[in-house]
Amino acid sequence: MGRVHLEAVRRVGTVDVAAIVGRRADAAQNLATAFGVERTETDYRRILEDKSIDAVHVCTPNSQHAPISLDALQAGKHVLCEKPLTTSSAEARKMVELARSSKLRNCTCHNLRYYPMVQHMRRMREDGDLGEILVVQGTYSQDWLLYDTDWNWRTDTAANGPMRAMADIGSHWCDMAEHVTGQRIISVSADLQTFHKTRKQPKGSVETFTGKTLAPTDYTETAIDTDDFGSVIFHMTPRARGAFTASQVSSGRKNMLNIEIYGTKGAVSWNQERPDELWIGNRNTNNEVIVKDPSLLKEKARSYADVPGGHGEGYPDTFKQVFRRFYASITDPSAAPEYPEFSDGLRQLEILDAELESHKGRRWVDIK
Amino acid sequence: MGRVHLEAVRRVGTVDVAAIVGRRADAAQNLATAFGVERTETDYRRILEDKSIDAVHVCTPNSQHAPISLDALQAGKHVLCEKPLTTSSAEARKMVELARSSKLRNCTCHNLRYYPMVQHMRRMREDGDLGEILVVQGTYSQDWLLYDTDWNWRTDTAANGPMRAMADIGSHWCDMAEHVTGQRIISVSADLQTFHKTRKQPKGSVETFTGKTLAPTDYTETAIDTDDFGSVIFHMTPRARGAFTASQVSSGRKNMLNIEIYGTKGAVSWNQERPDELWIGNRNTNNEVIVKDPSLLKEKARSYADVPGGHGEGYPDTFKQVFRRFYASITDPSAAPEYPEFSDGLRQLEILDAELESHKGRRWVDIK
Amino acid sequence: MGRVHLEAVRRVGTVDVAAIVGRRADAAQNLATAFGVERTETDYRRILEDKSIDAVHVCTPNSQHAPISLDALQAGKHVLCEKPLTTSSAEARKMVELARSSKLRNCTCHNLRYYPMVQHMRRMREDGDLGEILVVQGTYSQDWLLYDTDWNWRTDTAANGPMRAMADIGSHWCDMAEHVTGQRIISVSADLQTFHKTRKQPKGSVETFTGKTLAPTDYTETAIDTDDFGSVIFHMTPRARGAFTASQVSSGRKNMLNIEIYGTKGAVSWNQERPDELWIGNRNTNNEVIVKDPSLLKEKARSYADVPGGHGEGYPDTFKQVFRRFYASITDPSAAPEYPEFSDGLRQLEILDAELESHKGRRWVDIK
Amino acid sequence: MGRVHLEAVRRVGTVDVAAIVGRRADAAQNLATAFGVERTETDYRRILEDKSIDAVHVCTPNSQHAPISLDALQAGKHVLCEKPLTTSSAEARKMVELARSSKLRNCTCHNLRYYPMVQHMRRMREDGDLGEILVVQGTYSQDWLLYDTDWNWRTDTAANGPMRAMADIGSHWCDMAEHVTGQRIISVSADLQTFHKTRKQPKGSVETFTGKTLAPTDYTETAIDTDDFGSVIFHMTPRARGAFTASQVSSGRKNMLNIEIYGTKGAVSWNQERPDELWIGNRNTNNEVIVKDPSLLKEKARSYADVPGGHGEGYPDTFKQVFRRFYASITDPSAAPEYPEFSDGLRQLEILDAELESHKGRRWVDIK
Repeated sequence: MGRVHLEAVRRVGTVDVAAIVGRRADAAQNLATAFGVERTETDYRRILEDKSIDAVHVCTPNSQHAPISLDALQAGKHVLCEKPLTTSSAEARKMVELARSSKLRNCTCHNLRYYPMVQHMRRMREDGDLGEILVVQGTYSQDWLLYDTDWNWRTDTAANGPMRAMADIGSHWCDMAEHVTGQRIISVSADLQTFHKTRKQPKGSVETFTGKTLAPTDYTETAIDTDDFGSVIFHMTPRARGAFTASQVSSGRKNMLNIEIYGTKGAVSWNQERPDELWIGNRNTNNEVIVKDPSLLKEKARSYADVPGGHGEGYPDTFKQVFRRFYASITDPSAAPEYPEFSDGLRQLEILDAELESHKGRRWVDIK
Repeated sequence: MGRVHLEAVRRVGTVDVAAIVGRRADAAQNLATAFGVERTETDYRRILEDKSIDAVHVCTPNSQHAPISLDALQAGKHVLCEKPLTTSSAEARKMVELARSSKLRNCTCHNLRYYPMVQHMRRMREDGDLGEILVVQGTYSQDWLLYDTDWNWRTDTAANGPMRAMADIGSHWCDMAEHVTGQRIISVSADLQTFHKTRKQPKGSVETFTGKTLAPTDYTETAIDTDDFGSVIFHMTPRARGAFTASQVSSGRKNMLNIEIYGTKGAVSWNQERPDELWIGNRNTNNEVIVKDPSLLKEKARSYADVPGGHGEGYPDTFKQVFRRFYASITDPSAAPEYPEFSDGLRQLEILDAELESHKGRRWVDIK
Repeated sequence: MGRVHLEAVRRVGTVDVAAIVGRRADAAQNLATAFGVERTETDYRRILEDKSIDAVHVCTPNSQHAPISLDALQAGKHVLCEKPLTTSSAEARKMVELARSSKLRNCTCHNLRYYPMVQHMRRMREDGDLGEILVVQGTYSQDWLLYDTDWNWRTDTAANGPMRAMADIGSHWCDMAEHVTGQRIISVSADLQTFHKTRKQPKGSVETFTGKTLAPTDYTETAIDTDDFGSVIFHMTPRARGAFTASQVSSGRKNMLNIEIYGTKGAVSWNQERPDELWIGNRNTNNEVIVKDPSLLKEKARSYADVPGGHGEGYPDTFKQVFRRFYASITDPSAAPEYPEFSDGLRQLEILDAELESHKGRRWVDIK
Repeated sequence: MGRVHLEAVRRVGTVDVAAIVGRRADAAQNLATAFGVERTETDYRRILEDKSIDAVHVCTPNSQHAPISLDALQAGKHVLCEKPLTTSSAEARKMVELARSSKLRNCTCHNLRYYPMVQHMRRMREDGDLGEILVVQGTYSQDWLLYDTDWNWRTDTAANGPMRAMADIGSHWCDMAEHVTGQRIISVSADLQTFHKTRKQPKGSVETFTGKTLAPTDYTETAIDTDDFGSVIFHMTPRARGAFTASQVSSGRKNMLNIEIYGTKGAVSWNQERPDELWIGNRNTNNEVIVKDPSLLKEKARSYADVPGGHGEGYPDTFKQVFRRFYASITDPSAAPEYPEFSDGLRQLEILDAELESHKGRRWVDIK
């Protein structure tokens, strides 16, 4: 994620990157050279002492999110943290509290909200174009952990936390479902499955998604207890119903977040693999398909699209959109946060808690 | 369904339609005139007495399926019955038993199995192209009962039975999932929702799917207790997992049965709204898309396609394929039935029983 | 085509098939047995003498269309003839004249007009939904003659006539372009290419489209002078412009007739490989996509769809629609012909003449 | 284009933006503020005098490309110029010559080559995966100039040059066709059409693509002689054939560059509106569809994709890819230019010359 964050920060235009922190000095130095950053550190505390630095991005494995973010807030830095916010809702609650009391800007990087068409869906719902929401369904399916030779720090519970597919991508799906519908998932029946009870752990380190191109070499057979796949049926307030699955073992799906929202007046369907398209389902008139075009977007969604109609915006652009808003809110302390805060990250951990409890008890669990 | 059956029977080539039975004499006569059929009756028993008639098609509302089929078997007729086979598994069990003891041909019209690409998926699985099945997911979504002014005999529990969306279309989905994977759904957690607690029942009769073009006239406000929507998560033997929804209130979806099957070696995805296409998902090589072409079909699937590559075959053709095989098995008593029998219809009712029990108890229910 | 015609005739419901004529007695007999037809002949003249026969279908190689059709008209039979109508416009003109003077029903089987969505496009244009037509473009691309080992009677100029891809499928494209727009192609610049100057002709006979599944056996190296591919740019009245290609050597395209029509108010795009879908292009509002649904079709297009929304109708159904209208016009002599007549077949031959002349002269050629 | 260039330059990481030149001081200053650039000028000559500046980007209307680029080369600057390179091939030839003699880096910004899937197509062709190329066809269609109230500097011949749709977007299509196939268009028959002989020119200035959102105010009725639409059929060496259209009046098409390349072994089809997908057409095996995934790309195409499989890269990313290579070649004078040079821009102007001559003479014209 380091490179994606660095490029996106530079696109904001008015932000300077002061330093890069990495556990491995050489990796940090390489990145700094590639992006013309002057300072690197291996201990993040050195950075927190620097008064000239306003904000930090936390892009580490999940288990480091809470300690670093808490230290950063304590040091008076604004914090943008990757998702899932932490590996437990208890820790997340601490982060939310400290952020609130310190009055510092805090962002959970649920960047997928920032596709122009996702914002257009949200604004359609706000304007009542969908009517009352009845059904929300979909999936987040990938295939990069299909084989037992696939490995990533996320397969390691210590670095990742107790849930994997559901936390890494299922939480993106739920965040989008709640963000777009404006409703809350209130009760779940969930089922998790670990297809590979052991995986072959390479002895070196592996960058996310690059495992596919590795040759088999030196492996340790390692026990796995996190989920490869999960399925959930749920209730939303007041009477909407839904279902979704999250999978890292679905052959041929590279990054398919698909969400379908059906209301009494109309429906929308969106797929991250074709991010600039939106399907709108109608009962008594033709269905519609939008190819992203600023002139066709809801006025409140227009600022999320920077290039003309039919000129694709992709995954890197979502980060630019988050960061632009995050830094604007630092410059203007009176601005409302137009991005997911730590409290949104906590919300996803509470849903994950309920899913795990439901799975273990084979019963429905309510989310407070 | 009358017209669809009549056309398809005539396409078989070697079958004559001897008579049409309908409760309304004029409707039966109109159909007979349109298709050059000489005899009509309003009482099906008259037909069962006719020794020159070999087989009957039962295309009535669900609640009549069992009594007519049982009488027909008793009268020595081969029986092809629409799905769901009955409104209760107890009745269905009787039909299965009588069919077995009478050694007559019996078919539950799960015609959707008969799309060429569905057979191709099945044969891919049989040949091991998918490896071990891990995940099965999808939906059967329609919009023709979205409004409370939409009405059909299926919204009437007496004619339809206790489950609606799940029985009418959910059962198609489960039949396809089991037929294609060769595995059994063994445990379900299901959730049903009736969004319209009352519907406006027109005083006249309404043909299926034509309600959309009706003008509002004379209605009775009628209480509804059957499901508009259902969602299910399930286990399959030995360790596959899955999820599906069935909906008759999903705006913009006219007849979208979507099924995705993910295995350790590859995946398939098929959508009834584009029946001649099949998506094949691969992890380490390009995904594939087939436009139906006999030269690309598995050899055992080839007889399900009658026209050349890229020349679309649709819903009416599936009936021709079922009927052709049903009548061939009557001509050749030694032939194995290459179509769903009453026992397949019973199977779906057992799944429906489990879904209803799960919904009511908010718990997982096993299927024996 | 024999089987496709036979099934479709039987679906009309009120038409009996009296006899099948084939040059090979055994093939005719097999077909007759499969469809319960009592009489077969090897000489079509025997059929023409039979007073009880009202109409004949001409489904032979192109070079036999004219002699048989002329004899049939002379014998007082209504004639439905496959396309292209003949191998020369001179012959076609004779057929048109004899049909006119004899006042018999005559149909050129441009069945592709009969997809429900094609009729919907036509009715949209008639209702002014597209505004003034500006641009018409597309292709008819197939791959069944890609290799020099692919053979069919159409590659033989004697049986086929002087143009192949342009006549066999290009004429379908132009017929559709003119039918849907209601305008005429008035001037063309065309370019033809024969990629395989010789092909390996099998010594036995080959049914259309089945060559793909043949094993190489006994071949004759045969010179080919008909087109594998053609490209055309054209003018339509009053000021529309367009372009299309026709190809039988386009790898992966099984039967892709794609047509896009752009007007001042809106656009439509249709692809035969997804026949039940229509894309509607708008400038200032969302684009639209229709999945065929009778309730969404223009009223005048509704009778071309027999099954409900999302229930696919395909290539076989187009024949049923043509034949139904052809036979209705025989029953009712006052009925206007709702199908392409011989004059429409002649029209396509005149365009083909102009294309060939343009290609040879490397210049624009006007069509009178 | 200013913002797109600025963001993309900053993403390169190692390049500083020294100054922004604009005819309007306030516009330049706004841009400079947004991107943290310290210097602005209204006269580009001031910048050329600055020894600390290595390279300039020319993003003006077409008519200014040549004078500025020539001055910049004369001043010893490396030059990256937007396309079309100039408004006449004579000027372009001068630019090519000066660039060659000065040994400075020169780039024509045909950025569309830089989509990962376009590079993958190119590498497939280089590896022989397509066999011999037979047919190349497609379109570049947009709708932003559909109405006579749509206006842009490109509709003004003085600023734009004598050809509009063909030069602005048709040249992108031809550049891609030649780049991917490695072949040359050698002969064309072209037809141009100006549907709007006059347009309503607003009295203020209009940014490209934003006209759609303007309200009608104060207009001058202005005569237009550039093409709204053009269609071309062509020959490529040695025997490939093709056709394409370019249109700025095609309702519903926002930015659809579609290119289809058919060879003796396989085919590819790509559409800029879904840039991360590629269709591969096969005759005897299933067709394929790639969702961009570095692990599936040809090794030589892999460096054009920066984010993982299924994570979309779009239009802004193509600029980053061009600029990264342009600046790398400045740093390393021995590096081969991995980007289109001025000579590639000149090539497109020669094709445009031939198209215009063909249109005027209604005849085929060869390109030397």
